Amino acid sequence: MLKYMEIAADIERTIVDNDLAQGTKLPKFDELINKYGVSKSTIVKALNILEGRGAIYQIQGSGVFVRRRSRLGYINMIENQGFTTNLDHFDITAKVLSLEKIVPDLEVRENLLCKENEEVYRVKRIRYVNGQVLCIEESFFKMDIVTFLNLEIVGGSIFNYLETALKLSIGFSDKYLHVVKVNQESSELLGLPVGDPALLIEELFYLSSGVPFDFSRTTYHYEHSQFFVQSSNLNH
Amino acid sequence: MLKYMEIAADIERTIVDNDLAQGTKLPKFDELINKYGVSKSTIVKALNILEGRGAIYQIQGSGVFVRRRSRLGYINMIENQGFTTNLDHFDITAKVLSLEKIVPDLEVRENLLCKENEEVYRVKRIRYVNGQVLCIEESFFKMDIVTFLNLEIVGGSIFNYLETALKLSIGFSDKYLHVVKVNQESSELLGLPVGDPALLIEELFYLSSGVPFDFSRTTYHYEHSQFFVQSSNLNH
Repeated sequence: MLKYMEIAADIERTIVDNDLAQGTKLPKFDELINKYGVSKSTIVKALNILEGRGAIYQIQGSGVFVRRRSRLGYINMIENQGFTTNLDHFDITAKVLSLEKIVPDLEVRENLLCKENEEVYRVKRIRYVNGQVLCIEESFFKMDIVTFLNLEIVGGSIFNYLETALKLSIGFSDKYLHVVKVNQESSELLGLPVGDPALLIEELFYLSSGVPFDFSRTTYHYEHSQFFVQSSNLNH
Repeated sequence: MLKYMEIAADIERTIVDNDLAQGTKLPKFDELINKYGVSKSTIVKALNILEGRGAIYQIQGSGVFVRRRSRLGYINMIENQGFTTNLDHFDITAKVLSLEKIVPDLEVRENLLCKENEEVYRVKRIRYVNGQVLCIEESFFKMDIVTFLNLEIVGGSIFNYLETALKLSIGFSDKYLHVVKVNQESSELLGLPVGDPALLIEELFYLSSGVPFDFSRTTYHYEHSQFFVQSSNLNH
């Protein structure tokens, strides 16, 4: 981990561990420079990351302040890779429904830049929050990048496996959100009548190199899911 | 506008005006430093803003690359202040339904830190995209900050008025999303049957000083709205 990322993580830990309230003033730049023994530009980078994550806000000429969200149990729309970090106080479990190699539909092919008959891994999973259905998830992985998956792997954190075992560097993602009506297949899995509301999130994940490797469609149970987005610097 | 913000805006304009494709390599640091006549740290700041906005991605030791989203007509979940920037190709109009001074309900009071009998402005508006209902919006403004509103002002961009006339510095916001069923009141305004799906976004806006001044509840027509979120640096 780069130094400024370590410092950002350390400051965030301090905020959470001490349960600092919104508006609490953090130490001045000079104190942070001394504490961590780094240059001013490293501190600037660390604080910019924290501002982007919605953990602090900076007021020019005045200082750096803690930013907390007031509601618990909401899924962070910007970093929902790993539900555990967003639903800390909740019991999240998952069940694998299927793992197959298939030739995907056109939408998946276009997103993953697949050739016409190229096979991909398709993983279907269902996630539970406190024993209730949170979402059903259908993910497609490009096999020239995600070279191996099995049931044991997809039963745990796939991204963790990609980073530690396959040494992939996961970069960024595009999420597309639609509110839809529950269809027949989702109805059974979600335990909701056909026609009830649901949130469908399509997400395309890229490696740090900009290459797409995972396209997923996740359908959330509208009564068991809620989301938050923290925007910073609206005046930029 | 600060220099690094100007540079970020200029680079983004270059990308859009030249319709640069995803993955296009941008000029090297040294070239950008020469072009804009600023220090390296100013360029770093400008690029970090663009990365946060999902306009570029940076690969350590390799360069800076254009990031484009592949779908048009989606509302940016992170910066949806001003629909015009997100739905460029669409005709967005708004109609004011009401403007009143009221003592708000408990949820609004708690979000805006109001005293028990403190009055706030309540604005109800309906927005259209290409002549179809996009959303209905109920906003509450704290009157010790937003000292004056009238029908003409709320018929236009309220935030623009706050920044230019009232000289307020708008900072950041928290958004909370729920998928809900359309209720009786929304049903009539949205033109949807009671029980149909809708996306409810509650948003709390803060001044740059960290003081909350606007709490709003926006209900989106599920067939006329779609949203995107670009995440950067998932590995941070």
